[in-house]
Amino acid sequence: MKMNAADLQAFLAQDFPQVADDFRVEEVTDSGVRVRLRVQDRHLRPGGTVSGPSIFALADVGLYLAILSQIGPVALAVTTNCAIDFMRKPEAGVDLIAEARLLKLGRVLAVGDVLLFSEGGLQPVARASLTYSIPPKTQG
Amino acid sequence: MKMNAADLQAFLAQDFPQVADDFRVEEVTDSGVRVRLRVQDRHLRPGGTVSGPSIFALADVGLYLAILSQIGPVALAVTTNCAIDFMRKPEAGVDLIAEARLLKLGRVLAVGDVLLFSEGGLQPVARASLTYSIPPKTQG
Amino acid sequence: MKMNAADLQAFLAQDFPQVADDFRVEEVTDSGVRVRLRVQDRHLRPGGTVSGPSIFALADVGLYLAILSQIGPVALAVTTNCAIDFMRKPEAGVDLIAEARLLKLGRVLAVGDVLLFSEGGLQPVARASLTYSIPPKTQG
Amino acid sequence: MKMNAADLQAFLAQDFPQVADDFRVEEVTDSGVRVRLRVQDRHLRPGGTVSGPSIFALADVGLYLAILSQIGPVALAVTTNCAIDFMRKPEAGVDLIAEARLLKLGRVLAVGDVLLFSEGGLQPVARASLTYSIPPKTQG
Repeated sequence: MKMNAADLQAFLAQDFPQVADDFRVEEVTDSGVRVRLRVQDRHLRPGGTVSGPSIFALADVGLYLAILSQIGPVALAVTTNCAIDFMRKPEAGVDLIAEARLLKLGRVLAVGDVLLFSEGGLQPVARASLTYSIPPKTQG
Repeated sequence: MKMNAADLQAFLAQDFPQVADDFRVEEVTDSGVRVRLRVQDRHLRPGGTVSGPSIFALADVGLYLAILSQIGPVALAVTTNCAIDFMRKPEAGVDLIAEARLLKLGRVLAVGDVLLFSEGGLQPVARASLTYSIPPKTQG
Repeated sequence: MKMNAADLQAFLAQDFPQVADDFRVEEVTDSGVRVRLRVQDRHLRPGGTVSGPSIFALADVGLYLAILSQIGPVALAVTTNCAIDFMRKPEAGVDLIAEARLLKLGRVLAVGDVLLFSEGGLQPVARASLTYSIPPKTQG
Repeated sequence: MKMNAADLQAFLAQDFPQVADDFRVEEVTDSGVRVRLRVQDRHLRPGGTVSGPSIFALADVGLYLAILSQIGPVALAVTTNCAIDFMRKPEAGVDLIAEARLLKLGRVLAVGDVLLFSEGGLQPVARASLTYSIPPKTQG
């Protein structure tokens, strides 16, 4: 592992200042990361449920950080594909938790999947699988 | 067609006031709709490109409105699935245009796809396909 | 659980005689099933690797059986969506194993995902997520 | 365009002899190809409808040939991702037609989508989007 939870949180604050406060990196393991979306009003739809784009954003950040934890902050991975299933309505007024799992870290592509839960919930509200393109190493 | 561009825009303002100003319904035809994302600072990533969640949001709104244009504002369709490919970096400082096409409008599921362009661009920055669950008609 | 491994195997033989011999149901649990593709020449591409359609077929059968294990053989679930990532080349001359996991069993839709391995391999050759439409119960 | 319909058909016969007879390349344009699945008994499910794996196979072959028509037969592109929606039951006893459209042909990834019809049908039975990894050019 090249970056731990504190490293990833610092990376977000540095490179994605607009959204870094939305996310809290909770755990990093050899196989993935757990990230929390601190749900605010701007993430909600009428009725108090978390919006689809906010769920997408959490899945995307979760797996992105899982990749960076393995390869370090040098390279800029780019999301090329996401397939997401919205299975249950998130609970109102509750944070979302993403469990991201890296399934392949190749030379040019990384692939993984994410389960997303309302905090305290046992059944996932959504699942996603994502692919990232990893840029070639530049000389240094 | 049960709702035209003005109807859909009014529906957004009424039911999704938080995001209605982001989107402008530009055209409605028998097969789909064209919707513009009026790109603001909050849609951007560092470097000025439109963020993934904003592209997702535009695709989702685009096909949602294509469905409503056919079935009217009565029912609340819910996104159950989205597969999205990010193919090119959107141009900085330029609106995004979604061309949404309804491929199936069934009793319980609607399916369609969306091509997304930077305004004035000839090659799509992204494509998406989405499925919506259509709730059963209530008596009345 | 309404059907165990032997029940599912008998169901395949009865309802899908063309392909039943290709698959062996190895284990059924409360959360999913494990199914083996007994790789034959007709599943191969030049070079001896398992073809994409054969991998797709195994993922599809795997989750289909996971659903049937929960709802029984009465209803005819239909695949409506599949997102599949091909991550590694399957090993030549080796069976494929699918681990299918049911994530949602709703009134009209069921959703789950599948990891696929070359037998004995530790890293998945593919992953898939699938949605099935469950027909309404008929009277009687 | 580097390969026309006859070139692509000859390529199939050469490199994929097991399945080449299943497919007929009908048209090649600058933006894509049209390919026919000559439906045989082995493509069918009980009731006479074309099986999911056969639909997948046609979508995959369709876009694969669209890529080869642009880059020629030298490189071996590999399918990395497919998202497919099954929207309507194919008609029994009728060939399937795929209209494949190349949306991006990049240095390392190619992306496109496919609409699939029962011959003579106006509404698609399925749609698919696929990504291929293009191997680096070898010196020569």
